[in-house]
Amino acid sequence: MLLDELMKKLDEKKDCIIEIRRYLHEHPELSFQEEETAKYISDFYTEVPVDSVETNFGGERGVVITINGSKPGKTIAIRADFDALPIKEETGLPFASKNEGVMHACGHDGHTAYMLVLAETLAEFKDQLKGTIRVIHQPAEEAPPGGAIGMIKAGVLDGVDTIIGIHVMSNMKTGHIYYRSGNTQTGRSYFKLVVQGRGGHGSSPHLANDAIVAASSFVMNVQTIVSRRINPFETASVTIGNFDGKGTFNVIKDSVTIEGDVRTMSPETREIVENGVRVFAEGLETSYGVKSILEYNNDYPVLYNDPDVTEHVRQALEQASIPEVEAVLETLPQPPSEDFAYYLEKIPGCFFYVGACPESGEAYPHHHPKFDINEKSLIISAKAMAAVVASYCDGSET
Amino acid sequence: MLLDELMKKLDEKKDCIIEIRRYLHEHPELSFQEEETAKYISDFYTEVPVDSVETNFGGERGVVITINGSKPGKTIAIRADFDALPIKEETGLPFASKNEGVMHACGHDGHTAYMLVLAETLAEFKDQLKGTIRVIHQPAEEAPPGGAIGMIKAGVLDGVDTIIGIHVMSNMKTGHIYYRSGNTQTGRSYFKLVVQGRGGHGSSPHLANDAIVAASSFVMNVQTIVSRRINPFETASVTIGNFDGKGTFNVIKDSVTIEGDVRTMSPETREIVENGVRVFAEGLETSYGVKSILEYNNDYPVLYNDPDVTEHVRQALEQASIPEVEAVLETLPQPPSEDFAYYLEKIPGCFFYVGACPESGEAYPHHHPKFDINEKSLIISAKAMAAVVASYCDGSET
Amino acid sequence: MLLDELMKKLDEKKDCIIEIRRYLHEHPELSFQEEETAKYISDFYTEVPVDSVETNFGGERGVVITINGSKPGKTIAIRADFDALPIKEETGLPFASKNEGVMHACGHDGHTAYMLVLAETLAEFKDQLKGTIRVIHQPAEEAPPGGAIGMIKAGVLDGVDTIIGIHVMSNMKTGHIYYRSGNTQTGRSYFKLVVQGRGGHGSSPHLANDAIVAASSFVMNVQTIVSRRINPFETASVTIGNFDGKGTFNVIKDSVTIEGDVRTMSPETREIVENGVRVFAEGLETSYGVKSILEYNNDYPVLYNDPDVTEHVRQALEQASIPEVEAVLETLPQPPSEDFAYYLEKIPGCFFYVGACPESGEAYPHHHPKFDINEKSLIISAKAMAAVVASYCDGSET
Amino acid sequence: MLLDELMKKLDEKKDCIIEIRRYLHEHPELSFQEEETAKYISDFYTEVPVDSVETNFGGERGVVITINGSKPGKTIAIRADFDALPIKEETGLPFASKNEGVMHACGHDGHTAYMLVLAETLAEFKDQLKGTIRVIHQPAEEAPPGGAIGMIKAGVLDGVDTIIGIHVMSNMKTGHIYYRSGNTQTGRSYFKLVVQGRGGHGSSPHLANDAIVAASSFVMNVQTIVSRRINPFETASVTIGNFDGKGTFNVIKDSVTIEGDVRTMSPETREIVENGVRVFAEGLETSYGVKSILEYNNDYPVLYNDPDVTEHVRQALEQASIPEVEAVLETLPQPPSEDFAYYLEKIPGCFFYVGACPESGEAYPHHHPKFDINEKSLIISAKAMAAVVASYCDGSET
Repeated sequence: MLLDELMKKLDEKKDCIIEIRRYLHEHPELSFQEEETAKYISDFYTEVPVDSVETNFGGERGVVITINGSKPGKTIAIRADFDALPIKEETGLPFASKNEGVMHACGHDGHTAYMLVLAETLAEFKDQLKGTIRVIHQPAEEAPPGGAIGMIKAGVLDGVDTIIGIHVMSNMKTGHIYYRSGNTQTGRSYFKLVVQGRGGHGSSPHLANDAIVAASSFVMNVQTIVSRRINPFETASVTIGNFDGKGTFNVIKDSVTIEGDVRTMSPETREIVENGVRVFAEGLETSYGVKSILEYNNDYPVLYNDPDVTEHVRQALEQASIPEVEAVLETLPQPPSEDFAYYLEKIPGCFFYVGACPESGEAYPHHHPKFDINEKSLIISAKAMAAVVASYCDGSET
Repeated sequence: MLLDELMKKLDEKKDCIIEIRRYLHEHPELSFQEEETAKYISDFYTEVPVDSVETNFGGERGVVITINGSKPGKTIAIRADFDALPIKEETGLPFASKNEGVMHACGHDGHTAYMLVLAETLAEFKDQLKGTIRVIHQPAEEAPPGGAIGMIKAGVLDGVDTIIGIHVMSNMKTGHIYYRSGNTQTGRSYFKLVVQGRGGHGSSPHLANDAIVAASSFVMNVQTIVSRRINPFETASVTIGNFDGKGTFNVIKDSVTIEGDVRTMSPETREIVENGVRVFAEGLETSYGVKSILEYNNDYPVLYNDPDVTEHVRQALEQASIPEVEAVLETLPQPPSEDFAYYLEKIPGCFFYVGACPESGEAYPHHHPKFDINEKSLIISAKAMAAVVASYCDGSET
Repeated sequence: MLLDELMKKLDEKKDCIIEIRRYLHEHPELSFQEEETAKYISDFYTEVPVDSVETNFGGERGVVITINGSKPGKTIAIRADFDALPIKEETGLPFASKNEGVMHACGHDGHTAYMLVLAETLAEFKDQLKGTIRVIHQPAEEAPPGGAIGMIKAGVLDGVDTIIGIHVMSNMKTGHIYYRSGNTQTGRSYFKLVVQGRGGHGSSPHLANDAIVAASSFVMNVQTIVSRRINPFETASVTIGNFDGKGTFNVIKDSVTIEGDVRTMSPETREIVENGVRVFAEGLETSYGVKSILEYNNDYPVLYNDPDVTEHVRQALEQASIPEVEAVLETLPQPPSEDFAYYLEKIPGCFFYVGACPESGEAYPHHHPKFDINEKSLIISAKAMAAVVASYCDGSET
Repeated sequence: MLLDELMKKLDEKKDCIIEIRRYLHEHPELSFQEEETAKYISDFYTEVPVDSVETNFGGERGVVITINGSKPGKTIAIRADFDALPIKEETGLPFASKNEGVMHACGHDGHTAYMLVLAETLAEFKDQLKGTIRVIHQPAEEAPPGGAIGMIKAGVLDGVDTIIGIHVMSNMKTGHIYYRSGNTQTGRSYFKLVVQGRGGHGSSPHLANDAIVAASSFVMNVQTIVSRRINPFETASVTIGNFDGKGTFNVIKDSVTIEGDVRTMSPETREIVENGVRVFAEGLETSYGVKSILEYNNDYPVLYNDPDVTEHVRQALEQASIPEVEAVLETLPQPPSEDFAYYLEKIPGCFFYVGACPESGEAYPHHHPKFDINEKSLIISAKAMAAVVASYCDGSET
């Protein structure tokens, strides 16, 4: 059976995956600036018998590989992201970042490593494959507007039937794989509100228009969006992470800048929150006579795993009986947002999670300066994705 | 000299003033319902040689007396109010109210008593008077819109040069007279805001629109009118005395009624407060999607004592050397509002204060169920007003 | 097979169920006052071959029936509630309430009707039953502390293995049955806060302590419990349904009474909300110098359907192939609270929902003056519960 | 008469005053850093027949001059301040600041200029003086804790009977002199509150403690101090001029720093405000579980002009009939605070105002980058102060 052969081959290349991952970890690049990484990826394919290597896909540094099977069939896309974060690494690893202030603190180095080796392996077996496999190496997952959007516009999903993605998770047990059907990761919105009042001397408030008071009232009002506007059985959070009203104690502040982050799990709640922020910003103008300049962007949508595809993936993972995998389990929804959601807006697919908790058991959260993964999760990821691909593209049997 | 003769005569009638005051105290009537009191007043003048007695003045129960002096001169109005309050008397006085739940708890019984006797006395001396004296017995000082407004519309100030009024004050020492030039008593505004949301079950806030939350936000916002919009050297207070959001604990309230009271000392601050209440009510509609139904009435204006008239009054009082008066002093501004202010919007005049602290020294505030006055204040009021009238109308000398 | 015979018998008694339901609908009684209804229920069993009829169970008006099967087996409790609501009926039904201001507006009349006939039928077949069936006619489901608590204390669950309950639902399609495993209906808490300030005249706020302002601040603060303290993936609502600050516009309010309703879906969130309300009440004392008198009661817990029992129930319903039932479906969690949850705290069981949307399609919500059910839901309820009972107690086969 | 001779002499030195003022204007120095200015001042006295020149008075750069009259009498202190402000001058004057970012934007250059020339003149006439004149050149009026405090501690008021000061005012008409008896300029307090919560990711508010929400609630609460705690006839303002909650939009802010400015006109209101800020900071700990670290400093007290001295000053100014002075008028209280108030806490005195509105009529407020004065105000200041000094120290007559 094809899958067995793939597994065997991947086992042979296990160390290679780790080697690649460590190299990438040492050389992280920020979102939308991943020049060397993109080159590393495309160079990798030089000798690999894939059918095409498209670089600078979508105007950014995306690399898209096509592997045509020997028989007709569906087109399956598999995606790995490859950008890093503006974080100063504190892991003390021998292969820690050499690019000061930039770090692979979310596991995208691992995603890329397993994907390269898996793609190479699949290419080697293309005679036994049916349909087409599109390997998407995507830049800029971490920073809005995200790399997915540009690649979709440039046609990366054209003709694709289904898309599959994996995220390694430091907070999930190594050996576990988690899936969830339906709405799975939050959608995200960003807003920036400038509250423009009028400065003046602290002893004469009537001659000024205090932007700090107006903005504080906005903060209090905004709490009522989640507390009163959202169905208690739905999910929404609104955080104002920036209230920049820095000034001099005895000078009435003329202007305050507020920035906020919104998370929701459905388009309806997303809209309710947006409307709430808008009306409170507008109401501030009426109530406090300030000018409210609001910028509101819905960025990453809610990540929606197609139930049929998810069930298919679950079964493929179960049936694969990957030796390193103890259990395939349903997970609760996940708070973070992920730009894979854009692909899933267009076509059915599934994004699932591979446990990567370090052996020590001490797991730092993603985006933490001490974040690390259990490298066993990489061979698991490779095999798990191989199992899913094989379930769609195994042309060997017939 | 005329004043000496007036004083002498008033001294003779001292007990009569007290007798009248006690009769009125026993028979209090509410604002705009003072039928018997008005009749008592007009009956009093039956035998008195005044030149005219006009009743039901201004559509209400005002009684206006004209006393023409024998020589030409200015027209001076003197005013006493005669309504009582919806208070259940607890004084235990032998002449306590016989009209259960109604009480002369502000001294208007005393005002009327001294004024009747003074008017009678002035009429008796009219040969020695120059000009015209108009005695205004005014109903309904206590309840908006106040009795003054109607009497002014009906012409009570036509041809009047100056108007003078007195209030007895339980919190000021008996034997002291107080005056203040310029803005002296607060102006008052009233507002009523209905915040109309949409009811619903407590467990589903997203299907309702919580009027209690919107109204609470309004209360907090309104605090900023005084704290940020008003010149700290000016006076303003905004009290929300009624927040009627009575409902069932688990039913989201559909509607809340708020009623408020505003005090200011200048037309500018009055306008700033009104504007503040209006914009916060309007902003609530934008912010919370409720309907705000606002009623806002400016009623009694700031009481403004004309500086020239006040100085004239001060000198007249000083020079009169009334034996019962120890001192004529300047007072601080007074928090209550008073509809005498309407007269002073039209013509120059002065409203001043006669100390009436009971001999016991235990003074209950005006409008208290145990309010009482020192009856010595009545002869003092009569003599003080006589002194002021004589200062304008003494025709005996020339 | 026993179930077929039960079904057949129930079909014969279909009109009887409706007749009983209409009689009860005409004679509703309030929670904790259901004297006649309790008598009606116990009288019903006079001629029925049940093994015991216990009345006034738990000090209240509970009626508990025991039916012993002919063979040993498990003890299964089935429960129907029988209290009505303080609502003035507006249905215009020929059998509308004759007890003015009281109405069966939640379907408990139907619960009792189907349960009586089902119990009678089960008693008739007791030779073919194994184990014991305990029929719980419970009063006072609608009003805290609820009737369940007293019956549990009095031992109604002693020896019971599993408990099953049904609610007819006007907002669910007739012909559908809904179930949910795990946390299914919200838990509820109630709180009452008296904010005690100090009264005074509106023009002198500094001499008083405004309870309306302090209470409004509390309302705004409380919004942050749901918005900032609760996991966005969890469920919580806090409604302040009563803000009783009724007063006179120009008198500073001395005291405000607030009453609130809390819904949560887990003990953890319940505790977080309680703590939030407590600290904001306490903080008010520090911040505003008022006295906060807080009463906080956790009443109905989260209704937790045992997953095994629920799966058992689902299968029993599926396999019964009740002709009137089109589908057995999973439901989302339900916002209301239900005192059946107390039973489920003690023993495993399942509470499920029988669609009762009127044929017109116009469904008024529960507790609405025009609430009505499709009476077809009653025979469905009887058969559904019969199916579940039979799945546990069918002693006929062996 | 002495005064006439002083006036004549001052007239002769008019240009000299302007020259000095312009020199100082070109060479401004910040509070507590006025090295060169202090040296300039002490150098000025090298040839002047004063009785002593004390430098570095009070540990700072104060310069104190003593002029002993030829006869015994009172000791009168006259004070001029000499520090500048951290403002970038935008006047375009030919003698604009050469010290970039520092500017005499409050008129202290003028104060020092007239005072130097006046002191010189008085010294020249000391044979005709009685008593002692102490000339206080004070540094650091603009920055808390102010220069006055140190000079008082060092004994500058020892043996002084009365102290007099002048401020030139760009917003008052040149040719007018203003005085006020009693509380005249606001007292000032400063506070700094650090609200310490706990950071976290925006999508998981329940794992963090949002300092921005807690601090916003504090801002809203603080508004109620002025709106509800202060007598509406009193003066108070509380401005939060700094709300430093700068952060990243999707990271819950761990800590916010707030700085505020308080102005009051009496010790009672000062205490009420301080208490209000303290209880709201403390209440935040209870309500929001944050840590509130509050620093609260009462600095410049209310400036209280002794009524007797003020009346004396008024009469001296009236009687002097200074040709450049059109009117000596009472002023309303002034919003700014002034560290001259510290002297007046110790001994009776008077601080009065000399109109300095530019001839163009376009007056920029004090502390504005385009602030300028009418230099005529300098000779007026010199003569006015001469008149007051002469009224106390004219020893020529007897």
